[in-house]
Amino acid sequence: MIAFQKYAEVFSAYAQDQLTDQAPENLYLPIDYILSLGGKKIRPLLAILGRNLYQESLEDALPIAYAVELFHNFSLMHDDIMDDAHLRRGKPAVHEKFGINAAILSGDAMFAHSFAYINRGFKNDRLFDALQLFCNTSIQVCEGQQLDVDFETRDLVTQDEYIQMISYKTAVLLSCSIALGAMTGGASDQDTKSLYDYAINLGIAFQIHDDYLDTYGQSELVGKKVGGDILQNKKTILWIRSLDKGFKERIQEALAIKDDSTKINQFLEIYADAGADQFALSLKMEYFNKALKNIDTLDIPDLKKEWLYQFAQNLMDRIY
Amino acid sequence: MIAFQKYAEVFSAYAQDQLTDQAPENLYLPIDYILSLGGKKIRPLLAILGRNLYQESLEDALPIAYAVELFHNFSLMHDDIMDDAHLRRGKPAVHEKFGINAAILSGDAMFAHSFAYINRGFKNDRLFDALQLFCNTSIQVCEGQQLDVDFETRDLVTQDEYIQMISYKTAVLLSCSIALGAMTGGASDQDTKSLYDYAINLGIAFQIHDDYLDTYGQSELVGKKVGGDILQNKKTILWIRSLDKGFKERIQEALAIKDDSTKINQFLEIYADAGADQFALSLKMEYFNKALKNIDTLDIPDLKKEWLYQFAQNLMDRIY
Repeated sequence: MIAFQKYAEVFSAYAQDQLTDQAPENLYLPIDYILSLGGKKIRPLLAILGRNLYQESLEDALPIAYAVELFHNFSLMHDDIMDDAHLRRGKPAVHEKFGINAAILSGDAMFAHSFAYINRGFKNDRLFDALQLFCNTSIQVCEGQQLDVDFETRDLVTQDEYIQMISYKTAVLLSCSIALGAMTGGASDQDTKSLYDYAINLGIAFQIHDDYLDTYGQSELVGKKVGGDILQNKKTILWIRSLDKGFKERIQEALAIKDDSTKINQFLEIYADAGADQFALSLKMEYFNKALKNIDTLDIPDLKKEWLYQFAQNLMDRIY
Repeated sequence: MIAFQKYAEVFSAYAQDQLTDQAPENLYLPIDYILSLGGKKIRPLLAILGRNLYQESLEDALPIAYAVELFHNFSLMHDDIMDDAHLRRGKPAVHEKFGINAAILSGDAMFAHSFAYINRGFKNDRLFDALQLFCNTSIQVCEGQQLDVDFETRDLVTQDEYIQMISYKTAVLLSCSIALGAMTGGASDQDTKSLYDYAINLGIAFQIHDDYLDTYGQSELVGKKVGGDILQNKKTILWIRSLDKGFKERIQEALAIKDDSTKINQFLEIYADAGADQFALSLKMEYFNKALKNIDTLDIPDLKKEWLYQFAQNLMDRIY
């Protein structure tokens, strides 16, 4: 816990000196704005943690940590346009405050800068591998966003397709972050792969849990209205499981309900009858346990393995 | 001339095998579409030319040639949204055909793939330098687009600011293309720098000539309506020179004219009185001659220098 706090401080000190006084001002103001909105900084934390598993000095992970945070915020900036989201972290989204054109162009500039920081972070012989990982990840994030968009207008989405979508849209950037951090620290290819898998499994568990909490969580805990996914007809794991269990007709009927609370209640009944809530919890645990097994294979001291258990638990407990 | 034809053929054969059968389909259809619209392929040609100055085999320049073409088309896709352009190469722009969201996301994916091709093209020890150049270039292209947007709402733009804008928006990608191509061929740092400068100066000369042709050229030659810049109140070199020569008031008056042909005629009078047309032609020649001087400093056989003269002349003659 104390180490994670230190990572946040080291990162914050580094980040505040980056991309300052850049011109033209109208390109960089939206970037300053979105970076100033806070956020959980999970990806920089993972990059620094990845390094710290192998090295005491953290400095060499900072350009990587900054790159993944820039990339994440670029993708938020563009996704918010596509999703027509008005708010980001409780404040006006970039395209609401600065206009769509600014959100497109400033997002592009952040994307370009993220590659520059990756390059800066790898002056050693692993630059090719690091860049290949970052390129693949950024391509997958675009593909994941497209799958998410595609699913909105599809009646049928399989569980495998859903897992691929959340892997690409969310999990691969977590994995890329910890893997690149570990690579700056000299991790073996085997360990790098295991850390990559750890974060993929954790990211999938997190997203399944997110689906569950949206319907069953306390609204204070998840920070958004419970049942929002149901009202938006989102293809969550609960929906997909209910379809798999043969509840297609009842879902179709529930979709037609106009009154919000009646609609939510109808879906809750379907999910209960399908056992979708329990299925989601057990699927989450399945991926969580896979992540824990990935830790066991690592060639690092037990104390450091403890950090990875702790991070996994914190993530599930929504401490970040 | 024959060599350039060969470059086009080699590139076309390579390009048709790239990014095929990629999923999700909705992400890659807009990419296929914009790449199928033709275009002059100047940037791939420059990348292959850069290599061919140092090597007979062209293959190793192809990933780079493809990367710069992908990047160029990504920037067109996003610029067309920002500029609300309905047509691209005589066909519906991507955002008109597939929607704004598709044009944003497919553009992002092209950008990401362009970095992957750069990485693929440089497995040697110059990857860091190559990537730094490509990152800087892509950042400058975003900055140049922002400057262009900013200029629209400014009354005063200096000649230096204008040159910086067209350098960033147009010339740096030409320079990056030939420099990266040369680097795959083993060009010295000195030669790489000279080739970079050659294409910068040529790009600036090209853009100044473009401004001139928009007002004074034959509409068949430039492929768009003559006087379009005047009607859009664009800050061209003709406008900037007239301001510099003290014609601010007459420009203000001309701006208020509602009738198109009266407005064009009024601007033509101002430009003639300011000598802006002759100034533009001589400024173009100044940059063109700088480009020719850059060729002289290169450590390559005279025959190969001839290729660079030929390319420069072809570009000015709008053969591409």
